[in-house]
Amino acid sequence: MTEADFLARLRTLPLHPGAQGLTDDTAALAGLTITTDTLVEGIHFLSADPPQDVAWKLVATNLSDLAAKGAIVEGILLNYPLGDETWDAAFLDGLSEVLTELDCPLLGGDTVTLPANAPRILTVTAFGRDAPAPPRSGAKAGDALYVTGTIGDAGAGLAIARAGTGDPELLARYRRPVPRLADGRALAPRVNAMMDLSDGLLIDASRMAAASALAVTIDLAAVPLARGVSDPLAAATAGDDYELLFAAPADRALPVPATRVGTFTPGAGLTLTQDNRLIPLPASLGYQHGLR
Amino acid sequence: MTEADFLARLRTLPLHPGAQGLTDDTAALAGLTITTDTLVEGIHFLSADPPQDVAWKLVATNLSDLAAKGAIVEGILLNYPLGDETWDAAFLDGLSEVLTELDCPLLGGDTVTLPANAPRILTVTAFGRDAPAPPRSGAKAGDALYVTGTIGDAGAGLAIARAGTGDPELLARYRRPVPRLADGRALAPRVNAMMDLSDGLLIDASRMAAASALAVTIDLAAVPLARGVSDPLAAATAGDDYELLFAAPADRALPVPATRVGTFTPGAGLTLTQDNRLIPLPASLGYQHGLR
Repeated sequence: MTEADFLARLRTLPLHPGAQGLTDDTAALAGLTITTDTLVEGIHFLSADPPQDVAWKLVATNLSDLAAKGAIVEGILLNYPLGDETWDAAFLDGLSEVLTELDCPLLGGDTVTLPANAPRILTVTAFGRDAPAPPRSGAKAGDALYVTGTIGDAGAGLAIARAGTGDPELLARYRRPVPRLADGRALAPRVNAMMDLSDGLLIDASRMAAASALAVTIDLAAVPLARGVSDPLAAATAGDDYELLFAAPADRALPVPATRVGTFTPGAGLTLTQDNRLIPLPASLGYQHGLR
Repeated sequence: MTEADFLARLRTLPLHPGAQGLTDDTAALAGLTITTDTLVEGIHFLSADPPQDVAWKLVATNLSDLAAKGAIVEGILLNYPLGDETWDAAFLDGLSEVLTELDCPLLGGDTVTLPANAPRILTVTAFGRDAPAPPRSGAKAGDALYVTGTIGDAGAGLAIARAGTGDPELLARYRRPVPRLADGRALAPRVNAMMDLSDGLLIDASRMAAASALAVTIDLAAVPLARGVSDPLAAATAGDDYELLFAAPADRALPVPATRVGTFTPGAGLTLTQDNRLIPLPASLGYQHGLR
């Protein structure tokens, strides 16, 4: 079953009001903003990735969802599969680093054993408070679409991780993304819609447009690229960047640096341009679970 | 690494005050009681178990932790590995049943894809409110140790599931445990310590005694057994019963039926008796992750 089919079925079950119809990346409960993400060995990280980096990424990707809501980090739960002594010890080292550096205390969790040769599957559930929580669905016709930072860095970093050689800065963007917690907190009260970029600029922008019942046009020439990244279409369909994607009136002053990459208009769907020419949409707009 | 070693390392990391030193089954945050449990195919459930029952058990085992705190159920998050259409559809049927019957709305979650042939790993995080939350560590010297219901039913049910034939009531106790939410809510304000029985009576009672810095003596002859269960030692070391285990003064009136199976005394460790004779402790007191 695809993620979309599964979600459609879930929406027919008894839903909590805080689930917000399962249309967003976070739930709201008792003043908390709550999000959960699972990472799978061989899907979201490579078996050869250092366990310290897996711990970092697991926590950082969850906190990135809180960043997109402008939340203050409260803490995390960890669901961990016990394995060999060396991997577990290295993971704990990375966990200590990321919890300390991102000021995120541990609230609890669960440990399990896996059958022999099973891939590691790790889950974190993250809690934030005091979030202005701009929804994914709040973009208005005429709003500009912005991203923080540069796009496609993690995709380039993944290629470097697979090749075993390349720019260490891009590799770090793949292995140790830094959630934009301070930027998200500054932006959240001033934007109409916001989400983090986890599956790719094109697919995530499409999701924001669909949730907002609007069309969106993205100008590939405007997509901000890091040094060493040259293909804007590849960058815009690669995931794992954990930058912030947001909609705001084009004339609104922004409290943090961001790049305008597109515009919301009445209608539906995604249009891609480059230097005022229409560009055909690629076969895949980004990463979709259950499709590979 | 064993669960105990891993937990000891986690306790050296930055902990949230609501983690309560990672000594309990639940965390406390913003007036909520929070718990999370992961079920692994081949470890916590059999590949041949009906997906509907796996969904039931996944939710029920989490709500059992809330029951032990006397919480009112608020809702759950689900982390789900998308698989084949048939299994997913059957799981959703069971999920619908358990959420409806236990009055537990869905708050959100995450879906992932797994590599080919990977065992299913499913996580639920459950939220409750207004919990008196008796701790695991609150037993007092002289307190009686009680359990609700009967013990070893799920262990017998697992044997039936493996054999493919046997008493359907015992099988249901393994596949569809019913969390004692109403009993837990009635008991929680009147007991000194409480937890749910997930890993086995002997190991869980030992954990309550250790957390309370006391010794505990259990009388095997007093262990309440279901019809069709005859070996009290096997029953007391089998897991998955999801009954409530609690400590209260022996002269305190209880609001729900329960059986006294032991006594807390000053000291440390577990002593086992049967008809006033000392019984040697078995090699394994119950289920421990990371040890098999």
